[in-house]
Amino acid sequence: MRHLLSTKSLSRDEALQILDVAEDMATVNDREVRKLPALRGKTVVNLFFEDSTRTRISFEAAAKRLSADVINFTAKGSSVSKGESLKDTAQTLAAMGADGVVIRHHASGAPLLLAESGWIDAPVINAGDGTHEHPTQALLDAFTMRRRLYGGASRGRDLNGVSVVIVGDILHSRVARSNLWLLETLGAHVTFVAPATLIPFGADGARGAGQAPAWPATISYDLDATIRDAQPDVVMMLRIQSERMNAAFFPNAREYSRIWGLDDARLASLGPDTIVMHPGPMNRGLEISAGAADSPRSTVLEQVANGVSIRMAVLYLLMSGQSPSVERKEAS
Amino acid sequence: MRHLLSTKSLSRDEALQILDVAEDMATVNDREVRKLPALRGKTVVNLFFEDSTRTRISFEAAAKRLSADVINFTAKGSSVSKGESLKDTAQTLAAMGADGVVIRHHASGAPLLLAESGWIDAPVINAGDGTHEHPTQALLDAFTMRRRLYGGASRGRDLNGVSVVIVGDILHSRVARSNLWLLETLGAHVTFVAPATLIPFGADGARGAGQAPAWPATISYDLDATIRDAQPDVVMMLRIQSERMNAAFFPNAREYSRIWGLDDARLASLGPDTIVMHPGPMNRGLEISAGAADSPRSTVLEQVANGVSIRMAVLYLLMSGQSPSVERKEAS
Amino acid sequence: MRHLLSTKSLSRDEALQILDVAEDMATVNDREVRKLPALRGKTVVNLFFEDSTRTRISFEAAAKRLSADVINFTAKGSSVSKGESLKDTAQTLAAMGADGVVIRHHASGAPLLLAESGWIDAPVINAGDGTHEHPTQALLDAFTMRRRLYGGASRGRDLNGVSVVIVGDILHSRVARSNLWLLETLGAHVTFVAPATLIPFGADGARGAGQAPAWPATISYDLDATIRDAQPDVVMMLRIQSERMNAAFFPNAREYSRIWGLDDARLASLGPDTIVMHPGPMNRGLEISAGAADSPRSTVLEQVANGVSIRMAVLYLLMSGQSPSVERKEAS
Repeated sequence: MRHLLSTKSLSRDEALQILDVAEDMATVNDREVRKLPALRGKTVVNLFFEDSTRTRISFEAAAKRLSADVINFTAKGSSVSKGESLKDTAQTLAAMGADGVVIRHHASGAPLLLAESGWIDAPVINAGDGTHEHPTQALLDAFTMRRRLYGGASRGRDLNGVSVVIVGDILHSRVARSNLWLLETLGAHVTFVAPATLIPFGADGARGAGQAPAWPATISYDLDATIRDAQPDVVMMLRIQSERMNAAFFPNAREYSRIWGLDDARLASLGPDTIVMHPGPMNRGLEISAGAADSPRSTVLEQVANGVSIRMAVLYLLMSGQSPSVERKEAS
Repeated sequence: MRHLLSTKSLSRDEALQILDVAEDMATVNDREVRKLPALRGKTVVNLFFEDSTRTRISFEAAAKRLSADVINFTAKGSSVSKGESLKDTAQTLAAMGADGVVIRHHASGAPLLLAESGWIDAPVINAGDGTHEHPTQALLDAFTMRRRLYGGASRGRDLNGVSVVIVGDILHSRVARSNLWLLETLGAHVTFVAPATLIPFGADGARGAGQAPAWPATISYDLDATIRDAQPDVVMMLRIQSERMNAAFFPNAREYSRIWGLDDARLASLGPDTIVMHPGPMNRGLEISAGAADSPRSTVLEQVANGVSIRMAVLYLLMSGQSPSVERKEAS
Repeated sequence: MRHLLSTKSLSRDEALQILDVAEDMATVNDREVRKLPALRGKTVVNLFFEDSTRTRISFEAAAKRLSADVINFTAKGSSVSKGESLKDTAQTLAAMGADGVVIRHHASGAPLLLAESGWIDAPVINAGDGTHEHPTQALLDAFTMRRRLYGGASRGRDLNGVSVVIVGDILHSRVARSNLWLLETLGAHVTFVAPATLIPFGADGARGAGQAPAWPATISYDLDATIRDAQPDVVMMLRIQSERMNAAFFPNAREYSRIWGLDDARLASLGPDTIVMHPGPMNRGLEISAGAADSPRSTVLEQVANGVSIRMAVLYLLMSGQSPSVERKEAS
């Protein structure tokens, strides 16, 4: 594994290795002095073509805990655009000695382009590209599921047989895509629930016949029926992007909330051990009620904390040049 | 002391402890290698909802000299607003492992809300909230007065009997409020001088009868008479916010400068040991003349330097988990 | 040498010292752990009145590799302007303990003002001021030439007899000016090639008779003739600022590219060892073709990498208080 570009391209062994190293990192994060020397003298560049304070500071905190230097490069406005400019930017960062590049880009495929171009030799980590993937989000979600479902005995285990329901704007969500591929690799079963206009055409085998191959997921338009029938272990609510709310294909907020929101009544209908996830930031009262967000079932804050551990693990595995077993000793 | 939210809530002992630890920190700042290991492995988040480069870099320098990692989180635009969003932001920072949060917010009371909400367990330091308080500014001002008035024999001493005149837009000034409460706690006497429209209604006992309780300060509308009668040890000029200059309640710049500015003539009328303070940045020629700003009486630059020592002391006391006596040893 | 304000004021010995220390720094940059303790506990402030991500992160990387703390101070908008405000900003940074100030300013002469004013005691490094100078760019260019021309035997050598052709908007280019003075000091011969409207009046002795003294450069308006006649060792293409493209004195893009651009035909006409330089970021297809930019003759990426070594050398020489020989030992 030289880069982390997608979960679709991640093998089961690679995924489990990241999750297991993240367990070690989580113990570092519980210490009094939360600092490992692993990446001392290395430079991580956060190359953000889209604003995302949460993701940027999560990677920044992860890199600093590994003693790396962090340089934030925020490309705003029109001076840096796709294609050739990305090439010159990448080569410049390489020449300055970037040892790892965390890239967020509005264009799907930009991280892959960066990694495969040869413009830069350093590991490339996809921090979200267009509507394509957001692999560290899916990894932290899987890590959170594993810890909740198996407690202290999670190391080495996959998510075989786990039922995960993902609700919301599947059409535009890189979080949904990254989760789908990783969860399938780890043996979980995914059900997507959304308004019909927010499911990609062809995702459903029936509708997509002759089109793109169907996704390895069950498609549903009825949240209540899905909760009743699928008996999910996990219900993951996606964030609604308010800038899409007035588009023709989009239900209005009240309707959305009533039909596809996780309100208190739906929360009460979940099985006793079902957990509620959300990638944040939440629109309380829209896709999730305050009661659901703050209930003991909610893993929202664990997801944030686990995000730092997952990003430490990914940076460590890609940049340290050391085997994970060394780390396990170092972190113990 | 778990947080630093205001000077009004600060006891005399707490205030003196901060001032005395800042004396130790000032010796660190005079060293060749200005670095203490006290907060190594800790993360300070600068959570700024209002721009303030000076205050932000003063806290940043202070945290880095204590070997902390610093993450700057600038919340601009409309995506982060008051209330519930502050909750989610705070919980997110807590989950990422913030060990201390320095917050500046346009809303009075936001730091208190953050500290009392339980959303975050880390110490909260108010770096200026609305028109409410700016406690580290008042602490660095008191530190500066103590050093000027008592020289090397300032440790452990309060400001008993010191006469401080504060001139300017008292109505909107969190610096004035924070200074008032701290100076009262330390035994000084405060006189506010301002146009009548820039004094809060009820601050003066006579005008405020039956309204809010009067502030523990003398109110004056006449700067020359006050300088003559109060024989101040300290004259503190507040910054005029130019965006308020065209408001109905505001005198125009020329009138303001003539009646309430510290010009060269008024500077000459001060007693031989009276010092001139300003929180910066100064509007030279408006509330203070260049001659006054650059005179030997002026403590403007000492205030800036002392600001780093005070902020180191506050971060140290709230975040290190060590007693100040350990520090005294460490810094010696 | 207390500051680095221009190359015009740099002696041959000073220039060679910087280039030689940069050779040591380049070996640090090739190491596994790219970190020297030289500036531990020191604070470098990047004081940028103009946006320049590339230059800012090059200085930031350089400072961090020397273990300095870095504070980025970006002065945007109208609140910080020239003159008195620069004074207050400088004094504030000094009071906060800045040990070195890297300044970029839209006004020619601002770094000199800062250095000579006495407002701040710290070394001042010019990172580009108006149309005046950009000395670290010229130093990294000279360093790149020396390494390309002499290989491993470059230490201690100047550029005596080297022929350098600089092409583009000489009128507005601080890069051209800084290169001119440094290259003259190091013994090279400079030819400027540009449209007549983009050569400063008086640069050419003939045109400037009775005006400013002529620059120590040959002036040409014909790129093809210059390449043929001057037999340059180095062709340096300047970046065209697209915001100037519609000005009356400016040829349009197609015309510019045809007459003054380094296209593939001109590239092929260069001597076998001639190198092609560009300060970046390049406008591929305008002042330089993609073929020229990516050819083995091109030093564009070496320039970026060498920029970090040069900036480390400058920060080290100005801020460490140590003699370069100590460094040579430390870096070996």
